[in-house]
Amino acid sequence: MGDTERVTTLFGVRYPVVQAGMIWCSGWRLAAAVSNAGGLGVIGSGSMYPDVLREHVRKFKEASSMPFAVNVPMLYPDVEKHMATIMEERVPIVITSAGNPATWTSRLKDAGHIVVHVVSSVKFALRAQEAGVDAVVAEGFEAGGHNGREETTTFVLVPLVAQALAIPVIAAGGIASGSAMLAAQCLGADGVQIGSRFACAAESSAHGAFKQRVIDAKEGDTTLTLKELAPVRLLHNPFYQQVQEAYRSCATVEDLKALLGRGRAKRGMFEGDLVEGELEIGQVSAAIDRIQPAAEILAEIMSGYRRALQAMARTADTSAGS
Amino acid sequence: MGDTERVTTLFGVRYPVVQAGMIWCSGWRLAAAVSNAGGLGVIGSGSMYPDVLREHVRKFKEASSMPFAVNVPMLYPDVEKHMATIMEERVPIVITSAGNPATWTSRLKDAGHIVVHVVSSVKFALRAQEAGVDAVVAEGFEAGGHNGREETTTFVLVPLVAQALAIPVIAAGGIASGSAMLAAQCLGADGVQIGSRFACAAESSAHGAFKQRVIDAKEGDTTLTLKELAPVRLLHNPFYQQVQEAYRSCATVEDLKALLGRGRAKRGMFEGDLVEGELEIGQVSAAIDRIQPAAEILAEIMSGYRRALQAMARTADTSAGS
Repeated sequence: MGDTERVTTLFGVRYPVVQAGMIWCSGWRLAAAVSNAGGLGVIGSGSMYPDVLREHVRKFKEASSMPFAVNVPMLYPDVEKHMATIMEERVPIVITSAGNPATWTSRLKDAGHIVVHVVSSVKFALRAQEAGVDAVVAEGFEAGGHNGREETTTFVLVPLVAQALAIPVIAAGGIASGSAMLAAQCLGADGVQIGSRFACAAESSAHGAFKQRVIDAKEGDTTLTLKELAPVRLLHNPFYQQVQEAYRSCATVEDLKALLGRGRAKRGMFEGDLVEGELEIGQVSAAIDRIQPAAEILAEIMSGYRRALQAMARTADTSAGS
Repeated sequence: MGDTERVTTLFGVRYPVVQAGMIWCSGWRLAAAVSNAGGLGVIGSGSMYPDVLREHVRKFKEASSMPFAVNVPMLYPDVEKHMATIMEERVPIVITSAGNPATWTSRLKDAGHIVVHVVSSVKFALRAQEAGVDAVVAEGFEAGGHNGREETTTFVLVPLVAQALAIPVIAAGGIASGSAMLAAQCLGADGVQIGSRFACAAESSAHGAFKQRVIDAKEGDTTLTLKELAPVRLLHNPFYQQVQEAYRSCATVEDLKALLGRGRAKRGMFEGDLVEGELEIGQVSAAIDRIQPAAEILAEIMSGYRRALQAMARTADTSAGS
């Protein structure tokens, strides 16, 4: 069973809840709201130009004195500039994803940052641990956005990673409630990362039309696709249907790249173009039913967690004799 | 949180653990070993001729006086004959899958059988409840063998189904340990169904070479494929590579049907042909590391469950003041 204190101590936060760094959703407003409410707020730098990231970090600092992180997808073309900003601005925690953790971890650690790496397999989790990261986020197939090729789900991935690693493990993918957080802890997670539900927070910078589409989403409305490029979980919409049509007509990788083009995620999630945009969200969107302030989301998750934990304790009492 | 007593009371068993009815693995030997150890043993009729099913039911009765079930995939060509055998032999519990629960539920209920239906979505779960089944098995994307088209994982599916239904919910997919069983209960499951681990039981009728391949399986070694026919999760082997090759060359549904042919599952799982056979198993095969008697598997799962529950209760005590 996971130990939530390992995560709260590492990050210096009250609750073992990390808000996922999501492109076009998680600027300083969302991150500050989460950090001020006791979680770990994360600025998602993958959709930001270098100067925009600096602006968000500074605005965060004006809005909150609590710990926070910046998420950096290492495939980002200007990754050097982002890392320079992070070091200059003394961002306490860096969450790296989509790349080799060996490239940046020791430089960041030497500069005094806490480093977390996102993984989708035990193999990459072990590699991250060897690279010296402080913790990993183990992200299952059900998570939104970019995802691993192995398609291992949260239920299978988290116990395997938790068993293999000595460092703390944060579970991601499919988690939007306190009882799911407790379930992740049963599987060995020391904390959780929550994306989709915070994408629908009032403070999320996503377009209102995108948030409403997420709220309306039913089970089966998302699919992990474009595996030949970089696997990504998308909400079904006319653009997704075009991708399916391309597969049916046996599209090549080049065809898929041409179809995807550039800027589709911004168009969908930030500009609210639900027809031509790329709409990244997790399977758990099926369980999300309203826009709420981030603090309210976090409070609900924590009270749900405590209720579930107390229910567990009562079950343990009842079955003590069996 | 799920209530395990709902499942133990419904089936009249000691533990809320259902052994999955798996083709070529679960004959009377495995089912009797599980039922005698306190779980619900299940004969998988999908790979049996009608007279073979009758023989297995009779042999079960000689080997055990405990409750048991027969699993019937309703796409089975001789489903009428299987149902006649089940009624004549007064099999106490019937688990139906892969078809419309309305077709058989009321006839089975009128004849005094307990009926359970396997679902992969809330939509089908509600349909099963309306048809009058006594419980559902909610099976996630990570499960082995045939699976839903929505690709909803256990972590996302179980809470949605448990919230929508009044009848008991049994979680399936990704569960092979006591802590995973407790996690499923956190998500709302009243019991669990375990397949892959029992496929490797000493009493499983699968070929030894198949069991060894499952034990050797690492994460990422299974994939849900052949979605245009009926989605099925397969272990990677030369046959699976042929399927991938067919996709790369833009195979039609007819091409895929021709490639699959007939009898591949028997060839792989029962005859041990790891090259040309179809090897059905769940993602959790990555966590299975040995062949054990079914009673030992069940005892380990239950002691792991109790340990996890006690650890939870201690956490609840510690965090009571927070």
